[in-house]
Amino acid sequence: MSKRSLGARALLFPTPILVVGTYDAKGQPNAMTAAWGGVCSSDPPCIAVSLKTTTHSYHSIKRLACFTVSIPSEQYLVETHYVGLTSGRDGDKFASLGLTPLRASHVNAPYVDEFPIVFECKLVHSLDLGSHTQFIGKVLDVKANDEVVNCHGPDMARIRPLIFDPGLRRYFSIGNPLGDADVLRSTS
Amino acid sequence: MSKRSLGARALLFPTPILVVGTYDAKGQPNAMTAAWGGVCSSDPPCIAVSLKTTTHSYHSIKRLACFTVSIPSEQYLVETHYVGLTSGRDGDKFASLGLTPLRASHVNAPYVDEFPIVFECKLVHSLDLGSHTQFIGKVLDVKANDEVVNCHGPDMARIRPLIFDPGLRRYFSIGNPLGDADVLRSTS
Repeated sequence: MSKRSLGARALLFPTPILVVGTYDAKGQPNAMTAAWGGVCSSDPPCIAVSLKTTTHSYHSIKRLACFTVSIPSEQYLVETHYVGLTSGRDGDKFASLGLTPLRASHVNAPYVDEFPIVFECKLVHSLDLGSHTQFIGKVLDVKANDEVVNCHGPDMARIRPLIFDPGLRRYFSIGNPLGDADVLRSTS
Repeated sequence: MSKRSLGARALLFPTPILVVGTYDAKGQPNAMTAAWGGVCSSDPPCIAVSLKTTTHSYHSIKRLACFTVSIPSEQYLVETHYVGLTSGRDGDKFASLGLTPLRASHVNAPYVDEFPIVFECKLVHSLDLGSHTQFIGKVLDVKANDEVVNCHGPDMARIRPLIFDPGLRRYFSIGNPLGDADVLRSTS
């Protein structure tokens, strides 16, 4: 198969859409979207989000050493997209979007109550990489709406998270289940 | 909305399925799957993958300070799943799966030629987090099959990457496009 070189680019398929929640210096709840992030450890459970140093949220994480990550379901596409377009410096995004900031129970940061699953994170590492600083948060708690959890845990088919294509900058829904990793394991 | 606490857990929705390519101490090409990873910087472009220290690939990255990430399309679900079940210590996974290891042009690591898009990465940071070590690679080149690239860049709808649900451990396909971030931007 012949592959063409596209040069050095920041891409991956898929990327998540993470809504990072913080309180700013005035105590105003703020949220921003990030597609640069992922899980980075199982034990302790840690997730990483990378933010530009110019963002309002960057300074809030630096100051309070904590953040939340809320996962929007696809029905909140427009709100989520708007969160990514504006800065908390210019006003309260929660209020202008009709979203509800709830204070996390384990860290001093707000999450988006309307979104089906949220992660409460204590900052454990910051790594300056250039355009972005990677913040690694130890997950102190995961909270989810009852309707997205079954007896085995949270169910992505019910969460219906947004999926981002950073190549063509498009949002997608999740598609069909293709296989159960543990069933494939036992039959392979 | 009332949320229930699920405790401290390593989850995120969605996670990617990344196939990490390395050469081992004998020069044998090896591949492993990782769901813990993501983009972490735009400039320089960097991606992170987290591996357990017990994996064969962990030692290969430590030794050669480079790796590739190949993104499997959904048609390679079974092969990709198998890659995640076995260790390169026990044999050549490429050979047993009928996959083709090609040496990357910018780093000393192999990628999976059958997969539609691949990333060639030079190790720039290692961070021990507990169960996992996070390896951050600077992307030196992205290579893609012609059929997944249009005039604007690589197209996730053509790549058809696997998507993983770490909650219920299931693989999914991508679904429908929901919106174009730049069109939404201009009309919002």
